[in-house]
Amino acid sequence: MSIHYPKGVFLPQEKPDKMPRKKDARAANRGMGFEDDINATNEIYLNSGRALIYKRTTPINVVRVDYSKGAKIVEAYFEKQSTTDYNGVYRGRYIDFEAKSTHSKTSFPLHNIPKQQIEHLKNVIKHQGIAFFLINCYQINKTFLVPAQYIIEFYENKPRSSIPFSFLNEHGLIVKESYPLRYDYLREVDRFFFAK
Amino acid sequence: MSIHYPKGVFLPQEKPDKMPRKKDARAANRGMGFEDDINATNEIYLNSGRALIYKRTTPINVVRVDYSKGAKIVEAYFEKQSTTDYNGVYRGRYIDFEAKSTHSKTSFPLHNIPKQQIEHLKNVIKHQGIAFFLINCYQINKTFLVPAQYIIEFYENKPRSSIPFSFLNEHGLIVKESYPLRYDYLREVDRFFFAK
Repeated sequence: MSIHYPKGVFLPQEKPDKMPRKKDARAANRGMGFEDDINATNEIYLNSGRALIYKRTTPINVVRVDYSKGAKIVEAYFEKQSTTDYNGVYRGRYIDFEAKSTHSKTSFPLHNIPKQQIEHLKNVIKHQGIAFFLINCYQINKTFLVPAQYIIEFYENKPRSSIPFSFLNEHGLIVKESYPLRYDYLREVDRFFFAK
Repeated sequence: MSIHYPKGVFLPQEKPDKMPRKKDARAANRGMGFEDDINATNEIYLNSGRALIYKRTTPINVVRVDYSKGAKIVEAYFEKQSTTDYNGVYRGRYIDFEAKSTHSKTSFPLHNIPKQQIEHLKNVIKHQGIAFFLINCYQINKTFLVPAQYIIEFYENKPRSSIPFSFLNEHGLIVKESYPLRYDYLREVDRFFFAK
């Protein structure tokens, strides 16, 4: 006798030692896919003269360099990004945002946002920059642009440990997917930050 | 009989074989010293709420990572910065600049500026960002803030292979040195980019 599970259901009794790793790998790939799409979008923005937005490189702490064959780094470690993934200039204004992807079906877990990122985005707002999150909700196939102030408020009041998608829907704008401009998020930036 | 030299006088006839290395080391330190001073200035700007300006990290091309003990990078190489050293937000506007130091007595050699940096700064100007160079002329003890458009023009017309200090003086503004705010360059940004 065999049991038919619906597709995609998580079966902890099946290969318990390998499941978490597999799941992590899938989650990581999803995140990379979204990031790649944002990078591709930014390249189109750059080439078409629409905006100048760069991905910040992940900071690396270099411990040891071998100068015997050029300058080869032989010991270094990735460090946590204390700011956000992207910044740049659009219509003369400073723009700064974080792109996140979640595989949750209902909400975006707050533990994905480090405290320094919140502090950084508060500073951006204080200096009248444009600050927001792009949140890709993989399971419901939607991407939201949410102005940072709403996420900051939620983060600081912490009514829950994760932000329900309904909150993102209420305070954010849905970013349409298309091709070749994968996520034309500047349309939503125009609507939210430049509308009178 | 002993000769009393004033303190700090440079004596080229002393240890001739070691001088060049010493001089290089000093030149490198000079550059680092200027960068450190700009970083210290930016930290004061951040803490006093005046501006939010970050140093971009040098991009590193990671070739190999050893996951057996955490994520240790075991092979990587420094890459050339294709943008500038600093960017951020000031009074709502995007700000982007490069800090350079020279030990020449008369001019700033153009080979210090990579072509991609010129392209990047042209893009910043196109998108109405604030773009400039901070050039520390160690030998004459002066630091100039020069709006990027003048350096770009000189670079593209290339009347000479280095920019005479007289040009920096004509098109730039002198940044005063003080303490603890080592180089209060935002004063000059105000005068140049925000004056009506």
